[in-house]
This record gives sequence, structure tokens and C-alpha cells, in this order.
Amino acid sequence: MAVASLHHTDAASLEAEMRAVGTRARAAASVLAKASTETKNTALRAAASALRSRMTALLAANAEDVAEAKSRQLDAALLDRLAIDEKRINAMATGLEEIADLPDPIGRRDAEWTRPNGLLIQRVRVPLGVIGIIYESRPNVTADAGGLCLKSGNAAILRAGTESARSSRAILACLVEGLESAGLPAASIQLVPTQDRAAVGVMLRMDDLIDVIIPRGGRSLIERVSAESRIPVLKHLDGICHTYIDAGADLAKARQIVVNAKMRRTGVCGATETLLVDRKVVATHLKPILNDLFAAGCAIRGDAETQALDARVTAANEQDWSTEYLAAIISVRIVDGVDAAVAHIEHYGSHHTEAIITEDANAAETFLAGIDSAIVIVNASTQFADGGEFGMGAEIGISTGKLHARGPVGVAELTSYKYIVRGAGQVRP
Amino acid sequence: MAVASLHHTDAASLEAEMRAVGTRARAAASVLAKASTETKNTALRAAASALRSRMTALLAANAEDVAEAKSRQLDAALLDRLAIDEKRINAMATGLEEIADLPDPIGRRDAEWTRPNGLLIQRVRVPLGVIGIIYESRPNVTADAGGLCLKSGNAAILRAGTESARSSRAILACLVEGLESAGLPAASIQLVPTQDRAAVGVMLRMDDLIDVIIPRGGRSLIERVSAESRIPVLKHLDGICHTYIDAGADLAKARQIVVNAKMRRTGVCGATETLLVDRKVVATHLKPILNDLFAAGCAIRGDAETQALDARVTAANEQDWSTEYLAAIISVRIVDGVDAAVAHIEHYGSHHTEAIITEDANAAETFLAGIDSAIVIVNASTQFADGGEFGMGAEIGISTGKLHARGPVGVAELTSYKYIVRGAGQVRP
Repeated sequence: MAVASLHHTDAASLEAEMRAVGTRARAAASVLAKASTETKNTALRAAASALRSRMTALLAANAEDVAEAKSRQLDAALLDRLAIDEKRINAMATGLEEIADLPDPIGRRDAEWTRPNGLLIQRVRVPLGVIGIIYESRPNVTADAGGLCLKSGNAAILRAGTESARSSRAILACLVEGLESAGLPAASIQLVPTQDRAAVGVMLRMDDLIDVIIPRGGRSLIERVSAESRIPVLKHLDGICHTYIDAGADLAKARQIVVNAKMRRTGVCGATETLLVDRKVVATHLKPILNDLFAAGCAIRGDAETQALDARVTAANEQDWSTEYLAAIISVRIVDGVDAAVAHIEHYGSHHTEAIITEDANAAETFLAGIDSAIVIVNASTQFADGGEFGMGAEIGISTGKLHARGPVGVAELTSYKYIVRGAGQVRP
Repeated sequence: MAVASLHHTDAASLEAEMRAVGTRARAAASVLAKASTETKNTALRAAASALRSRMTALLAANAEDVAEAKSRQLDAALLDRLAIDEKRINAMATGLEEIADLPDPIGRRDAEWTRPNGLLIQRVRVPLGVIGIIYESRPNVTADAGGLCLKSGNAAILRAGTESARSSRAILACLVEGLESAGLPAASIQLVPTQDRAAVGVMLRMDDLIDVIIPRGGRSLIERVSAESRIPVLKHLDGICHTYIDAGADLAKARQIVVNAKMRRTGVCGATETLLVDRKVVATHLKPILNDLFAAGCAIRGDAETQALDARVTAANEQDWSTEYLAAIISVRIVDGVDAAVAHIEHYGSHHTEAIITEDANAAETFLAGIDSAIVIVNASTQFADGGEFGMGAEIGISTGKLHARGPVGVAELTSYKYIVRGAGQVRP
């Protein structure tokens, strides 16, 4: 009985604490929605300065996070994502300044038309309101996500990973310094004040106080958020990206693109995971490409025909075709032409980014029309799947969903719109 | 033990049946995505012809639905929504022909730019995929929703209300006749084959087979769908619309707009439910408006000051300010200027449609900037909140959410986009 009461009290106080965060965010959002471009940019630039001037404190907070992570024997990849140094802090600051330099999406008039009855209708960009972002160990997300939300006039509630809690709080202090120096509410960007996992559950039910949830992290985080959330989720699921070498491919382009698409950086979502090759060019194209990939340090898992070409190729199993390796591993399959390539991608892919290498315009158009992915590329590397490379500026992720935003999610994708109707006394017949 | 097994078997077979519907829809969607405008329009026009030529069968099916509804003593409003006659069937057919006349949103190039590295980036409209629509008693939704999904290249899974099951099946047969005459898959538009309420629960978990859910109906339906759905929901919640008479209002415009906004049709979501009046013009403007409303047959619930003006005004309580009457009732409150009007609306409103009546440009701009609603109007009736009145053609509803679509949801809002990137061998540095 006593335990049950205590538990109830804790849940109730957690709920109250989280709702207070949401209520402050909602109030801040209504100020941010009307803030001028200049005010928002002043806050972003001041936050960048604060990151640089508080370098020592940031490094000290991060060192504590790293020491604790080491004492808990967390893996090397996590420690790498967690650690920040002067270079990474400068990159965060520069990132905020680049966001300041982006055009302000708010107030932009997307469309305007006049009806036969004289009503003038304008569709104008407005912020979404309050954005909840749930992420894992990278402390830089605190600065990037906070900055993107601020520029797009949205309040942000950030739930950082437990491992990076001290680093994220130190970065937040810099963002708040920027906000306050521009006269904007400190609550424009808030961190969830507790690492209690139950706080995430409460957050995902606050559909009156949060307008959209963006999870950034691994598949299990995104699946938990999607399953529990009462709030719409903008999600970035797997990037099982494909490059298809068509019969009409130029060999030199194919060779340089494949190695770049797989090996430039293997841990990014736009890295190619599966190579498909038209049977007609196996002899001419695939052999040199296998050599290139091996030379670059890539392991290759192939179907039986690919294995027959080169003894170093190991066997791909059914699971390989739907695996996002995020590592120096590629799966290779030989297919009969562009339609078979499209069928393979639609069956095993994740609708993120796919490329065809060909000089044949018909094959290219068949591929572009048949592939239902956020980004479909002809004759270039899948690693161009990035908001910056698209010229959209910083991004909060690549949406693999089709609702609201698809592909890179930058400041413009963090907005909604409203209709403004100007009349002169019209009534509806 | 036996009961548990039996229940499990039923649930499993329902799940299998629903997943078969979804799988057929997914296959149809990939055909529809590539269908030409002409093919889709042929199907729409043939479906309209079928509705007219099968008039007798439609009326007979509807008569059975109506007879059963009467035997179950369902209320008069529901019977009115359920009943169709020759005029309503002709209106459905004309509606499909109007959808055929709309521009095709699919394939439209929204934007195109070239990067410094020579990559050409195009953003092109594509269908969402499979749309699930859950509605109540109006059989015409079967034709309207089916037609809008078809035009926008989406497959539709329709879950009609139990009361209108026979009518909806008869209408679906006309749509399928249209699809087949154009060579499109019959499964492009399907009805959920069972009225078992558990089928809706299964449908809302089929996030691999359905891309978006659109509930059309009362608040309880929409809340159930929002709570249960694993699939993104485009929802139309309450339309608690406001008209605000500013100190700068022209009296003649104010009088004609208020009566139209409230009384033209009281059951539509864009009907004004609350009238706010600046204290400065109570004496000049509010008295005649109260008279107009009473003369038009409207009941008035007012704050104390409004009651003091006219003995026929009854007392509004706190609940009135957040009530969508959908009836000849209006609540009236006196406020101190545009900021107070904005504060009232932001507190009690539903972010649907609000209007200010004023000749004062500053007051108008304050209202337009301060109101966070899908539609904000100056000097016209809130009853213009309608896709047709906006020139967008038929609509499936008015979205009160901010993600993806806000305001009228027509064929353009039932689409997503993809990025097409055309290169000449570029690799990412």
C-alpha cells in the first residue's frame, strides 16, 4: 500500500514536472512565432559565441560524461560519438552561425490567388509550435536541433541521452545565453530535467503541448517512440541504400561512384549497402568494381554468381538484402535489367536513397519513376543524401516517411502554414 | 481453453482478411502511381456514369439501410445523413466529374535547382500510397473519398459506417466499374469487408500497408482513431470558429457577415460559434446584430453585459466558450480590443477558422499574426472555410492539425514528394 502510493506520487510529480516544461515551451512558442528574423539570428550568433567562450567548461562537463561512460564500459563507438573536443565545439558554433545565415522560412508567402468573388487568399509559412526531440549520445544534437528549431520559430524540448547529460546541459547553457541576449524566452529551448526513462513516456502523451516528435537514434529508439507516441512523429528509419549499375553504365563513372557511395563514410545513412548489377555488364563492369572495393578495404557478400567471379566474395544470405551495415561491408546481386533492380529495391529497400548508373535515358526514367524513395539519383553517389549537399542548409535528419516532410528535414520542413483570407464584406451564398 | 482458442482463431482470421485487403491495396497503389491523368479521369467519368445508370439499385440498397436504421430507432439527424435520393446520387456523380476536371497533382514539379557541383535537383509530387478512410453514416463519402484518392494516385481502403453498409457497397460497385473500364485494378478502392469493430483496430495497426488514416466523423471517432493508430492520422477536430467585431468594423459589413457566418448553414464546421465584440462598439454594433440574429431564429447565450443589452439573451457559462454547437445557437462575449479577442480565441478556440471585421489595417494585421488557426479571415464570413470556396476543388475535410496539411485537404494535400537528382558522375568529396 505504501509502495503503491509512493509510486503514484512519483508518477504524478513526474507528470507535473513534464507538463510544466511543456507549458513553458508553449508560452515561448507564441513569442518565437512573432520574433523577427534579426532577433532569432542574434540569439543564434550569441549562442555560437558562448560555445566558444565557454570552451573550458564544455570540455570539463564532457570529460565527466566520458569518464562515467568508460567506468560503465560502454562501447568504443558510443565513446566516439560522445566525446567532444575543441574542434567539435567550434563545429557546433559554426553550425549555429550557418543556421543564422539561412533564409528565414517564417512569413514566406508560398501562394496567393484571388477568387472570382474578390477574396484574396494567401498561404503563409508559420512555425509548427513545440517540437520534441529525443536523441542518444551525440551532444552536438543539442546545439544543432536547438538552433534549427529556433530559426524556424519553434520552441524545442530536447531529451538528450543519459550518457551525454552533463555535456548537453553545458551546451544548453550557451543556447540560453544566446536566447536571453536577444530578449527571447529562456524556455525556447529546454532539456527534459530528468533522465528517468518514464519522462519519455509522459512526453509522448503530451499531445496538447507538443506538436511533433523527432526521434534521432537507432531503430529501437525510433520504434519505441512510434509505438508510444500520441503526437505525430517525423522519423528517420533505416537507410538501406542501393546503387544499380545498368547495362548502359559508363564504366569510369560506375567505378568512382560505387567506391564513393560505399566507402566515403560508411556510418552515414546515405551510404550504399547493396550493389545491384545488370547481368549484361557483369564481365566488363563488376569485376573491376569488386577489385576497387576490396582495394578500399570493403568486405563483399555476394550472390552465387558474384562469388563465382572472385574467391574473396563471401555468401550473402536473405538477411543481407535488408541489412543496413553502416560498416565497410557491401552486398552484391546480379539482376536482369532495370525492372528487376526496381523490384529488388522495392522489396528489400527502406525508401531512403537509391541511384542508377547509366547513360541510357530510358533506363534512367524507368528507375526514377519506379523507385518510391525519398531521393532517387542518376549518375551520382548516394552519399549526396544530405540537406547541406542539397543546398538546404543544416538538417535535423532525413525523413523516410511520406507525410509532411520527405528526405532532408531542414528549417523549411520544420514549418506549417496558414491561410490568410482578405475580403471586403463577402458572405457565402 | 476452448473459448480462448476460438477467440484467437477469429482474431487471426480477421487479421489475415484485413492484411489481404491491405496487400491488394499496396499492389494497386503501385499501378495507380504510374497511371496517366487520362486513365484516372476515364475511370472517374465512367464511375459517374455508373452511378447514374445504376440509380435504381442504389436507391434500393439505401432503402434497406434506411429501413434497418428506422427499425433500430436511430435518430432523425442520422437518418437524414444516411438517406440518398436521385438528387444526392446525381450530386455524387457530378462530384466525380468535377474531380476529373481538376488538375492532376501527380508529377508536378514543385521546385528545381542546380548545385554548384552540377547536380540538378527536382522535387516532384508523388502519391502518398494507401489511404485509409474511416467514416460514419454518409454514404456519399464512399464516392467522394474514393474519387479524391483515385485522382491523387492513391489506393483507398474505406471503412464505412455500419448503418450505410449496403449503400456503400452499391456505390463501390459503381467505382469499381469505372476503374475496370479504364484498365485500373479493382482493388484501387476497397471497402473493409466486415462491419466487425475489431477490423478498425487491425486496420490502425497495419502501418506497413497503409500510409495515412483519415477519420471523418464525430469527436469520439476521431479520438479513438488518434489514440489507437500506429499510422499517421490527418484529422479534422472541432470547428469552434469565431467572428470578432473590432472597433473599426463597418456596421453594414458586420451585420451581413455575422448572420451569414452563423446562420447560412449551422451544421458545417466553418459556422461561427462565438461572436466577440469590442466594447467600444457595443452600443452601435452589437444591438442591431443581436436583433438580426434573433430575427434569423438564432438563440443567443451571452456574458453579463450582453444579457443586459437584451432580455432575450440567456446566460453563457464557461463551457459555452468551447462548445461547437452546430446549431442555431451563438455565444457572445464583449472584449477590450483585438488583443483580448486574440487571447480569448487562443484559449478557447480549436484553431480552425476565425474572422475579424474591421476597416482598421493595424487591427487586421494584429489579428492575422496573433491567431494560430488554419484559416484567418478579414471582412468575410467564416463559412468560406471550404476547399471548393478556396478554388481547390473537392475536399476530404479541413485539417486542424499542423503536420502535412492544414486547412482544406484536397487532391494536392493527398500527395507527398520525392527528390530526383540528375548527375554526370559526381561523387561527394
